[in-house]
Amino acid sequence: MSEAKPLPTPAEVEAKLRRGPFHQWLGIKVLEVGEGTITLQATWREEWVVNVEGGYTHGGILASLVDLTADWALVSSTGRGVPTIDLRVDYHRPAGKGDLTAKGRVKRQGGQFSVAEADVFDADGKLVASGRGVYLTPKA
Amino acid sequence: MSEAKPLPTPAEVEAKLRRGPFHQWLGIKVLEVGEGTITLQATWREEWVVNVEGGYTHGGILASLVDLTADWALVSSTGRGVPTIDLRVDYHRPAGKGDLTAKGRVKRQGGQFSVAEADVFDADGKLVASGRGVYLTPKA
Amino acid sequence: MSEAKPLPTPAEVEAKLRRGPFHQWLGIKVLEVGEGTITLQATWREEWVVNVEGGYTHGGILASLVDLTADWALVSSTGRGVPTIDLRVDYHRPAGKGDLTAKGRVKRQGGQFSVAEADVFDADGKLVASGRGVYLTPKA
Amino acid sequence: MSEAKPLPTPAEVEAKLRRGPFHQWLGIKVLEVGEGTITLQATWREEWVVNVEGGYTHGGILASLVDLTADWALVSSTGRGVPTIDLRVDYHRPAGKGDLTAKGRVKRQGGQFSVAEADVFDADGKLVASGRGVYLTPKA
Repeated sequence: MSEAKPLPTPAEVEAKLRRGPFHQWLGIKVLEVGEGTITLQATWREEWVVNVEGGYTHGGILASLVDLTADWALVSSTGRGVPTIDLRVDYHRPAGKGDLTAKGRVKRQGGQFSVAEADVFDADGKLVASGRGVYLTPKA
Repeated sequence: MSEAKPLPTPAEVEAKLRRGPFHQWLGIKVLEVGEGTITLQATWREEWVVNVEGGYTHGGILASLVDLTADWALVSSTGRGVPTIDLRVDYHRPAGKGDLTAKGRVKRQGGQFSVAEADVFDADGKLVASGRGVYLTPKA
Repeated sequence: MSEAKPLPTPAEVEAKLRRGPFHQWLGIKVLEVGEGTITLQATWREEWVVNVEGGYTHGGILASLVDLTADWALVSSTGRGVPTIDLRVDYHRPAGKGDLTAKGRVKRQGGQFSVAEADVFDADGKLVASGRGVYLTPKA
Repeated sequence: MSEAKPLPTPAEVEAKLRRGPFHQWLGIKVLEVGEGTITLQATWREEWVVNVEGGYTHGGILASLVDLTADWALVSSTGRGVPTIDLRVDYHRPAGKGDLTAKGRVKRQGGQFSVAEADVFDADGKLVASGRGVYLTPKA
């Protein structure tokens, strides 16, 4: 990150993200992009539910959000989504019906791979899941 | 696991799993259920793709499969899906278009929480992802 | 954390920590204790080295520091070290000869288990490792 | 692993491992080396203990064994210890006084990084911890 690249706008990042059909299905919107940070929103859908009685969102959806948010927190240097090497997610409380917000930040930018993390919040702003991934970020 | 419970049939486990809308969306079929083991299949759909050029399935789908397969590997003792405490997934190679098969097994059954793991294979039988979760399994 | 317990002093926490022979061997000093936070120091010793040419500290020492620092970040509510359920560590750069400083903080306090994390810095203040654990914290 | 390299002997691997002062301190012995597998032993010492009443070994020692055993499971292709990118450890039961045995195996060998895992057993052969690491294994 030695040279200052102009920061992409949320609309630019959202357009890139939404080329992916899974990102479209998750209804991803980009709310904010910073240097090594990002804030996303995902639009609730009935198919996310694991348990119809409780109405809880499946942990796989929360893991998907941790992964993609951490990955795209790197966008100010990568310019795009990059391959995930591994992912770790902690589940903090059940996520009920409603849109989810996710905040990502780079923990360590490296020349071969980078570590980034994300927190996922429910519609009431409560932390429902958080975690980290290692991403492949070779120097061009 | 001191008392032998009769092992549920794949059809019984599949019926329980498919109560969850997300499991339906993933097109989950149960191929085999053993003592602390399970084999599942997920039915490929266009919305899984992250990258339209490569046609690769999103890591979040693979994470979902690791989670639910490890969780349901515990079904011979839990009788149902249980809450995930945390999840870790390693990505081994890109998963192209095609159904995925996942094999789960219990690593350590405990009285408060249990560890189970899963491998996910593509339609050619190649390992695309693998990982582990910790699951809440309190004694009744 | 509904009731305000008086915060233990660094000297009180250090005395508890140093009952453990491994903590003594690591030369643990407690620099600061806050509500859900802690700062520790570990005193370099020759036996930490994995590679005599480079003089690098073994990743197991860094993992030990992540674990014990995250664990003791919970001390303002637990009053003691508690069992680790699982641990995840990212290695950011080699740690050369010199004392290490570790900062821990609680990510999510729960009634059965809690998540806490820690960063480990070398003598120059550079981040060498970071990670998270899940800890057993049943209500009394 | 396209070319068959002659497998190093346990004595050869032990000699390499014991160049590291931390490995000496752990009293590492190499019991078996296979293609992508290894079995090690660590010699109990008083300084491992975290809790003098229970006599339990610190989780950091178990994490160290998971890391180094998984790392050296790669030795049939790497020929040496390689850098750890990240490490994940599950704790299964307390480890009392006594030597520990660790069995490692490669999960996925790659051209840039590889995943390997390890199980750690107490003197009674009970599984006390297990886990995985990602290791840097660039092609020469």
